[in-house]
Amino acid sequence: MPVPAPNLYPPFNIVRLSHVEYRVRDLAASRAFYVDILGLQVTHEETGRLYLRAMEERGHHCIVLVEADTADVGVLGFKLYDEPDLERAERFFAEKSLPTAWAERPHMGRTLRTRDPWGIPLEFYVRMDRLPPIHQNYRLYNGVKPLRIDHFNMFSANVDASVAFYGEMGFRVTEYTEDDESGRLWAAWMHRKGGVHDVAFTNGLGPRLHHTAFWVPTPLNIIDLLDLMSTTGYVANIERGPGRHGISNAFFLYVRDPDGHRIEIYCSDYQTVDPDLEPIRWSLTDPQRQTLWGAPAPKSWFEEGSTFEGTEPVPSALKAQPIIAP
Amino acid sequence: MPVPAPNLYPPFNIVRLSHVEYRVRDLAASRAFYVDILGLQVTHEETGRLYLRAMEERGHHCIVLVEADTADVGVLGFKLYDEPDLERAERFFAEKSLPTAWAERPHMGRTLRTRDPWGIPLEFYVRMDRLPPIHQNYRLYNGVKPLRIDHFNMFSANVDASVAFYGEMGFRVTEYTEDDESGRLWAAWMHRKGGVHDVAFTNGLGPRLHHTAFWVPTPLNIIDLLDLMSTTGYVANIERGPGRHGISNAFFLYVRDPDGHRIEIYCSDYQTVDPDLEPIRWSLTDPQRQTLWGAPAPKSWFEEGSTFEGTEPVPSALKAQPIIAP
Amino acid sequence: MPVPAPNLYPPFNIVRLSHVEYRVRDLAASRAFYVDILGLQVTHEETGRLYLRAMEERGHHCIVLVEADTADVGVLGFKLYDEPDLERAERFFAEKSLPTAWAERPHMGRTLRTRDPWGIPLEFYVRMDRLPPIHQNYRLYNGVKPLRIDHFNMFSANVDASVAFYGEMGFRVTEYTEDDESGRLWAAWMHRKGGVHDVAFTNGLGPRLHHTAFWVPTPLNIIDLLDLMSTTGYVANIERGPGRHGISNAFFLYVRDPDGHRIEIYCSDYQTVDPDLEPIRWSLTDPQRQTLWGAPAPKSWFEEGSTFEGTEPVPSALKAQPIIAP
Amino acid sequence: MPVPAPNLYPPFNIVRLSHVEYRVRDLAASRAFYVDILGLQVTHEETGRLYLRAMEERGHHCIVLVEADTADVGVLGFKLYDEPDLERAERFFAEKSLPTAWAERPHMGRTLRTRDPWGIPLEFYVRMDRLPPIHQNYRLYNGVKPLRIDHFNMFSANVDASVAFYGEMGFRVTEYTEDDESGRLWAAWMHRKGGVHDVAFTNGLGPRLHHTAFWVPTPLNIIDLLDLMSTTGYVANIERGPGRHGISNAFFLYVRDPDGHRIEIYCSDYQTVDPDLEPIRWSLTDPQRQTLWGAPAPKSWFEEGSTFEGTEPVPSALKAQPIIAP
Ligand SMILES: [Ca+2]
Ligand SMILES: [Fe+2]
Ligand SMILES: [Fe+2]
Ligand SMILES: [Fe+2]
Ligand SMILES: [Fe+2]
Repeated sequence: MPVPAPNLYPPFNIVRLSHVEYRVRDLAASRAFYVDILGLQVTHEETGRLYLRAMEERGHHCIVLVEADTADVGVLGFKLYDEPDLERAERFFAEKSLPTAWAERPHMGRTLRTRDPWGIPLEFYVRMDRLPPIHQNYRLYNGVKPLRIDHFNMFSANVDASVAFYGEMGFRVTEYTEDDESGRLWAAWMHRKGGVHDVAFTNGLGPRLHHTAFWVPTPLNIIDLLDLMSTTGYVANIERGPGRHGISNAFFLYVRDPDGHRIEIYCSDYQTVDPDLEPIRWSLTDPQRQTLWGAPAPKSWFEEGSTFEGTEPVPSALKAQPIIAP
Repeated sequence: MPVPAPNLYPPFNIVRLSHVEYRVRDLAASRAFYVDILGLQVTHEETGRLYLRAMEERGHHCIVLVEADTADVGVLGFKLYDEPDLERAERFFAEKSLPTAWAERPHMGRTLRTRDPWGIPLEFYVRMDRLPPIHQNYRLYNGVKPLRIDHFNMFSANVDASVAFYGEMGFRVTEYTEDDESGRLWAAWMHRKGGVHDVAFTNGLGPRLHHTAFWVPTPLNIIDLLDLMSTTGYVANIERGPGRHGISNAFFLYVRDPDGHRIEIYCSDYQTVDPDLEPIRWSLTDPQRQTLWGAPAPKSWFEEGSTFEGTEPVPSALKAQPIIAP
Repeated sequence: MPVPAPNLYPPFNIVRLSHVEYRVRDLAASRAFYVDILGLQVTHEETGRLYLRAMEERGHHCIVLVEADTADVGVLGFKLYDEPDLERAERFFAEKSLPTAWAERPHMGRTLRTRDPWGIPLEFYVRMDRLPPIHQNYRLYNGVKPLRIDHFNMFSANVDASVAFYGEMGFRVTEYTEDDESGRLWAAWMHRKGGVHDVAFTNGLGPRLHHTAFWVPTPLNIIDLLDLMSTTGYVANIERGPGRHGISNAFFLYVRDPDGHRIEIYCSDYQTVDPDLEPIRWSLTDPQRQTLWGAPAPKSWFEEGSTFEGTEPVPSALKAQPIIAP
Repeated sequence: MPVPAPNLYPPFNIVRLSHVEYRVRDLAASRAFYVDILGLQVTHEETGRLYLRAMEERGHHCIVLVEADTADVGVLGFKLYDEPDLERAERFFAEKSLPTAWAERPHMGRTLRTRDPWGIPLEFYVRMDRLPPIHQNYRLYNGVKPLRIDHFNMFSANVDASVAFYGEMGFRVTEYTEDDESGRLWAAWMHRKGGVHDVAFTNGLGPRLHHTAFWVPTPLNIIDLLDLMSTTGYVANIERGPGRHGISNAFFLYVRDPDGHRIEIYCSDYQTVDPDLEPIRWSLTDPQRQTLWGAPAPKSWFEEGSTFEGTEPVPSALKAQPIIAP
């Protein structure tokens, strides 16, 4: 099995993924998409910058939209457990000669900015402004009625190496795809918070952000979103789905925002809190791996992704390819 | 508008579509599909023949499976309102020099056998054995939990002519697709029972039966069926969907039985009882016509269908083509 | 069996129930309830009067709200099949010495105003202004996302007589409750349009309107409404449910508008177009009659109703009582 | 605020609740209820003893049914993170002079048996037999299609003390009910695994087990169970619901097994992994606390519960009472 054993005692305690900063070229167009169509709630708005949260989140934001000339990804954010974890995280990255800096971030406490070995910009924090609960304010529910951010999925030019690095940080593999020929990892799903993943890595030109996913309670939310997008001018933004993944068993839909950033709407994966949970292996050639129901993903889904600000992606040495729709 | 005005006073009163006889090559395989996967209920079983009903039906059968060397369609059945309608139907077909005969059909009262002008075998009856209700016997619900037969969809080599003929019998058009260039009908949906259709016609090599549809209450039934088929050896029998039709606004899935007969699972169309309901027009080039969400149907969906016993299909003169998946 | 045989050849052809006129004391409060909470669409608004339709309706209105000093019911409206049915209806009522008049009704063609033998104000029409379809305008869906008006339920001081009269007009009984002791009808459900009912009668101080029901596609719509009402100041307007009726097998919720008019949200009954559909009998003492799951209805549900303008209700001679919640 | 601060560094690491042992008087009757109605899967069966798991669980069992003369509760089980946590747990209980013993439990590794200060029998383990995943074996899904055990709810004669004790073990309060007059806790919900709770305490004659809850994906699972129970002889076993809790925001149903042990079917609460998640306070007099939609719980729900083997419950000194249905 090419998957490393879980690190039960990681150097610092990551609670969960927390937020993403998307750089967008037309903030008004992005606002229309994220707020009016997806139904995320505005928590702060200023010139060139918009903060959003989902319905059951009490932290200040899960997405920051920043108007920019280039549509890329500013940073991926993660919440740490307690104050000492910040220092421990700083030491972890510094010891690997990765860049570290203490950043001032609005609506957040002390924040460590760094990059993973392939240049993905990361930030870690313990405190973020806490907002009153709105999950029982049903008048506010709109669009797909997103409940919370669920995971990041990234292209990696070396999935084995990415899994090793994030595994060292305490992310635990729940499912993975192996290239039968080379025995190398083609993709892997890793979690901290007790679902199938907080982060996933897919073989390809990387690092790039493949998508950010939001959790909804039922497939009917996704059907509602499809109906809404189809009749409000967003039909071309629907990329793949609806369907059920083989991997993760989740019901999914992939849509693209006005800049092409990919958003997944996701529900019904399973609980993974057991530290001895056995990872599930899938062969790259299994046609039900991507979609349990058999439909292959389109070419764009395998090729397109968002670059990270300040990092140039490189091709993967692993050339194995999954089934792609004609 | 190429659609004829509704005939409010048809020569005889058709209540609804009623049943289909499928000829199948391996009755055990068909039984497994219709009973164990779709969840239809066996009402009578004898050598070479199986009668099925859906959960809210009280008539004896909506499908008859007959073991045969050739997998085609034996007959399409329709229920008439009252005894005098039988004679009136016989007169209607005889006056058009179409074949008529009074058939003995098990579990059914007096039955008129005939064919439409293109050779589709039809039967009309007033009485069928009535069975006790089982719709509140929830222990029996299985598979996709089908509630009732909903409609037949047929390939026609001349949709204008088919619509004129079935219109004369009192079927009313609810939605239709027009070829913008020729102004001819490319497809039409026609009803008697108050839904979007009891019968539909699609341009193509015809006559052939494109599919028989069953009604389920919610899209979640369809998701359950996909999950079940995908994990019991039927993943290759999933042909198209799930999705929402532009036309009819219904949520759909198309699957193929072991002989390739196409079955649609269908829900959430709308009530059409108003005699002055205006038909909705769709252009053949509208990409949201087939699927509101934009995904085109696969080639097989436009090309494959079940022939009717005793009738050779002929090509259509209308060569206009919709959008087909690559 | 105390239920009359269906009249397959009624004197005039009623297509379906169509609309109700509610007189309300505070139109703004009623507007908030019907538009912002239930999600009905405004089709015309003028001083003291509001017209509403549901999402799949193309007729101009299914509810008219009229500001008035007394909160009662102005009229129950029904759509007829064709122009000659209007004259036939007029003759039917006139021959029974019931009042008839040709009314001018906004947004409607020629309209017959009359009353049933117990004073329920009725109106019949063939033409109503037709509006463009909005069922695929998903941006407009709001509240419980009501699709169409489904039925009227009325208190009757003599259910046997009510059933006989409406049966003569062609309404067909689908289910009924019998008082085991007297053998008399305690309640009955009667349809024209192919569902379990367009009208129902319940024993009690009558005539009064017990409720008007709206059709929604799934139980989740009803759960959404409960969540919305509970968190927008309408928790006291929730009267009964959610639950599944034994009778009709429908999933239901009863709520009260600001004047106490009772509205049912209703889904998942069954198709009843067969003219030989056997009515289902329920005993008044069957605890699963009202609610399949066993919970009895509250006292208010059996006692409260809306009076009809110009008609004084009278007590029923039948004193049998169903199970009432303590 | 009467709720203690979360203990971020508990003496040993509890991952989640794991299993319950119910003692039942008629194992065949219990098997019918848990297997045929609820849809739990049998993982081991021997004379007088039945082991069950839910659909997404890979541990050997979440319920053990043991035939006995008295229908009480044998033990509540919890999974620990790693081997050293077992010793630490033993020390924690021993230092409080609570009974500890290392038990041999079938299908489980080394197991610590102990009791909480009020006599609730507890067991802690790290290893349990792991079974192959069945969550994608959709043919097995049956009944309510339970996905996993979710929580235990217990009557406590001193909720403040129970919360203090379980808080010391690292359970974190997510929501709580306060008696406005005394300022004492009337109920509290505490978690380890990232949902609203693994354990909850309610004021009353205690200790007793109020209920064990199972997680399902959507409210429609609960509606399916109600329909099934109502038509298979279990209508009297339906105690409360369906409804949405104010507290936890979860959709619920309470049913009773053949011995009266109470089972909750539960879905749609929210993620609680943030260690700084602020507990939500509810007043005991808030009518939407129990049921967001306003319906009060029945008397039995406040009074009846399952005793723990070997422990006599005692009355609570706190006499404050919530709203109870008449
Ligand atoms: Ca007029
Ligand atoms: Fe994903
Ligand atoms: Fe169809
Ligand atoms: Fe009703
Ligand atoms: Fe609970």
